[in-house]
Amino acid sequence: MNYDQIMQLALERGFYFPSCEIYSDAQAGFWEYGPSGVSLKSKFIELWRRELVRRDRMLEIDGSQIMSQSVFVASGHLSSFADPIITCQKCRSIFRADKLIAEITSVVVPESAELEQFDKVIAEKDVRCPKCRGNFDNAKKFNMMFKVGIGPQSEAAYLRPETCQSIFVDFPRLYKTMRGRLPIGIAQIGKSFRNEISPRQSLLRLREFYQAEIEVFCNPDKLNDIDGFSEIENTEIRLMIDDTIIKPVTCKEAVESGMLPNKLVAYYLALLVEFYQKTGIDVNKSRFRKLGDKEKAFYASVAFDFEVETTIGWLELVACNYRSDYDLKSHGNVSKEKFEVLHDNVKVLPHVFELSMGIDRSLYTILEHNYKEDKDNDRIFLSLKPYLAPIHVGVLSLVKKDGLAEKTEEIFSKIKRKYDAFLDHSGAIGRRYRRLDEVGAPLAITIDHQTLQDDTVTIRIRDSMEQERIKISDLDSHITKATSYP
Amino acid sequence: MNYDQIMQLALERGFYFPSCEIYSDAQAGFWEYGPSGVSLKSKFIELWRRELVRRDRMLEIDGSQIMSQSVFVASGHLSSFADPIITCQKCRSIFRADKLIAEITSVVVPESAELEQFDKVIAEKDVRCPKCRGNFDNAKKFNMMFKVGIGPQSEAAYLRPETCQSIFVDFPRLYKTMRGRLPIGIAQIGKSFRNEISPRQSLLRLREFYQAEIEVFCNPDKLNDIDGFSEIENTEIRLMIDDTIIKPVTCKEAVESGMLPNKLVAYYLALLVEFYQKTGIDVNKSRFRKLGDKEKAFYASVAFDFEVETTIGWLELVACNYRSDYDLKSHGNVSKEKFEVLHDNVKVLPHVFELSMGIDRSLYTILEHNYKEDKDNDRIFLSLKPYLAPIHVGVLSLVKKDGLAEKTEEIFSKIKRKYDAFLDHSGAIGRRYRRLDEVGAPLAITIDHQTLQDDTVTIRIRDSMEQERIKISDLDSHITKATSYP
Repeated sequence: MNYDQIMQLALERGFYFPSCEIYSDAQAGFWEYGPSGVSLKSKFIELWRRELVRRDRMLEIDGSQIMSQSVFVASGHLSSFADPIITCQKCRSIFRADKLIAEITSVVVPESAELEQFDKVIAEKDVRCPKCRGNFDNAKKFNMMFKVGIGPQSEAAYLRPETCQSIFVDFPRLYKTMRGRLPIGIAQIGKSFRNEISPRQSLLRLREFYQAEIEVFCNPDKLNDIDGFSEIENTEIRLMIDDTIIKPVTCKEAVESGMLPNKLVAYYLALLVEFYQKTGIDVNKSRFRKLGDKEKAFYASVAFDFEVETTIGWLELVACNYRSDYDLKSHGNVSKEKFEVLHDNVKVLPHVFELSMGIDRSLYTILEHNYKEDKDNDRIFLSLKPYLAPIHVGVLSLVKKDGLAEKTEEIFSKIKRKYDAFLDHSGAIGRRYRRLDEVGAPLAITIDHQTLQDDTVTIRIRDSMEQERIKISDLDSHITKATSYP
Repeated sequence: MNYDQIMQLALERGFYFPSCEIYSDAQAGFWEYGPSGVSLKSKFIELWRRELVRRDRMLEIDGSQIMSQSVFVASGHLSSFADPIITCQKCRSIFRADKLIAEITSVVVPESAELEQFDKVIAEKDVRCPKCRGNFDNAKKFNMMFKVGIGPQSEAAYLRPETCQSIFVDFPRLYKTMRGRLPIGIAQIGKSFRNEISPRQSLLRLREFYQAEIEVFCNPDKLNDIDGFSEIENTEIRLMIDDTIIKPVTCKEAVESGMLPNKLVAYYLALLVEFYQKTGIDVNKSRFRKLGDKEKAFYASVAFDFEVETTIGWLELVACNYRSDYDLKSHGNVSKEKFEVLHDNVKVLPHVFELSMGIDRSLYTILEHNYKEDKDNDRIFLSLKPYLAPIHVGVLSLVKKDGLAEKTEEIFSKIKRKYDAFLDHSGAIGRRYRRLDEVGAPLAITIDHQTLQDDTVTIRIRDSMEQERIKISDLDSHITKATSYP
């Protein structure tokens, strides 16, 4: 199984496909979710709400994607969220300076270096355009935010490059009206936008993408006062410090040994692992990799990437950043709004620990980790967790005649609002089962001649392909039991 | 009850509030959903899925918000989605030409008129800037799409002004891979963007807003072959033709009398009314208003607006447009992709009937229609349908001491993943009930000293304020029964 097989399945079974694909000016880095993808995504989001937002009593918001310029003056994105680029003087092709230099010369100039450093290496090593051998203009900074103009005066605003900025800006109102108390998580799911120079494979590096971000506001003097710590102290996480070996440790050990800085960080990393376990991603193939100083984002003082092994390498699914008071202090300075809150009668400017999850990449990984080639039975199936499956249950008539089609539709009508059910009359029954297997439907019920006699149907289990007969009157409770969230 | 009271409740109880409000360059027309708003919105969307998408076996997609320029060349938005504006020569203020002329002179120049017509009336009637009495420059067209530049070359693309364009562009792939058969509905929920010159009150005219759009692709020769028609033929809808009286008719009567053009249109209008009934909006205050030729959008051949009466007048919640083959023909011409499909062995270019729903306005109307002032009990409450309530159940300790807090948290922990539950220990019990009433929580359970004796709790019903005692072991089934979707 590899990336190309997942892509083929995604295209054929309505998981995802390129945006605007009928047009020649379609741009790279934009993808659409088809019906199977939408269904998987909404169930993933519901699981995220259950296991993170509701479990930890977080607040969830949904903010504007277009935000005012001041927000990004304060956040630092206007000045710092930029890649170094170089343009060929002859063919006008544009490249990421750091990447092209690394490819051609194997000299490493960090992306955050001064622009002169790129120009210097290009001159010294005579780096030329790989397309036409032309020389390059001086390196420039390319800001990755999309700019939009508001109203007829075209006042400057930007599509947010990360959802969390709304959370920071809204913090004073939310904390007050929702009667907050530190530590408190504020969560948001939504689109973010980055004008990438080189978007990558399908869902893995998009210009428009879904994030599920959680910002935990905390008192920096009380990072070890965590009520729920005992709940997760024995939860095992796989830690990688200094880019060497991956060490499985319990959260308790990780804090006591100093591998993790405090109980608050340990608690949220544990919640994350417990969540991903329930998505059906193999967490034995995961690691929290501690980032070195050069790799961290400009706002992070300590950072762990939650990465998962896939056929195309280790994939970062969640960035866990201790952003300290970077954001609230900056927004406070630029806006003059007060961000301090009272905690145990002391005024504090909260610090922030962030779990920034990429939804699209997580969905790709779920597909990859659950893709099964069952050669004995000449089939492919997705062994998705039943509560995440795009279709809960297929509803099939064995044949269309003898009143079976009508009976099938009657049964379908009774369950179609509550479950994601798929009615299918056409084609050989074996092929219909195969198609359901390929979207990961855990159950398929078949209406046959016996159904007309005794009001029973067969129910087929995806993974084992076993079938049993059950009463129609038991169908609802049977499906509920098989597809409920854990 | 009026708009201002709803606004106050929305701000105080975390339904919605202005975006970027801490900054002076915050722009009008951008709002955020707080925790109560997010919860209400996701439940509204789930109901929409149940009563429209799943009920009618539609396909749901989720497409990019940024789309290529060619899409809007074909759709007509690049040339036609524009308002006439005039700029004051002296103070540079900008106004909608048609609106300012109507206000000052009561001459009606339709917004789609030639630009010279505006200039002519302005000259004749000596229309001046209401701010500084300056003269105006010639009228110009202002396109309401937000433009963005993709990649370092800044190739032109736009934020979609309606979600349906992805549905049209994706139709060939979806119809093929999902084994479509006419008529088939394709649905999408997502953000759309319109650079309004004058955004209006809060959720009612936003520059960035949520749509839930359904495009029904159909064979124009078979608009009366609708399988499910008998299911809805007695459903009553309130029709307003020629802007005169509102006439309640069954769908059957409406088709037979020619008030509605065919069974397909009647079927989907009925589904819409049945859906809105379940949202708790008072459909006795609704009407489908048939639009005159001047009011219709440029792509619509027949159009009905689903409008609901509110304290600020009739509010359009859904535009129901028969778009004929306008969209598929245009996209076919510009892209050269084939949009014809086989239906009963005949090649047809499908026609489209659209239900374009504004989610934000619908949520506003739900709040307004369910806002109750209960003066006898000195409280305000939202009589929301229990399945739409932001909080299903409050979980309160009568007092914090004597082990009641711990018991309360134990009960809360058991239900917090499955339901939207709210744990509250602090303040007088009466005030805690009032706050729950104001977010429309249908249930509140209270843990008291008797709970420690016999494992029972009191459960309070929002609307009646009645309380009964139930066993903790019955809590789950009790809450499920009270809060399940219909």
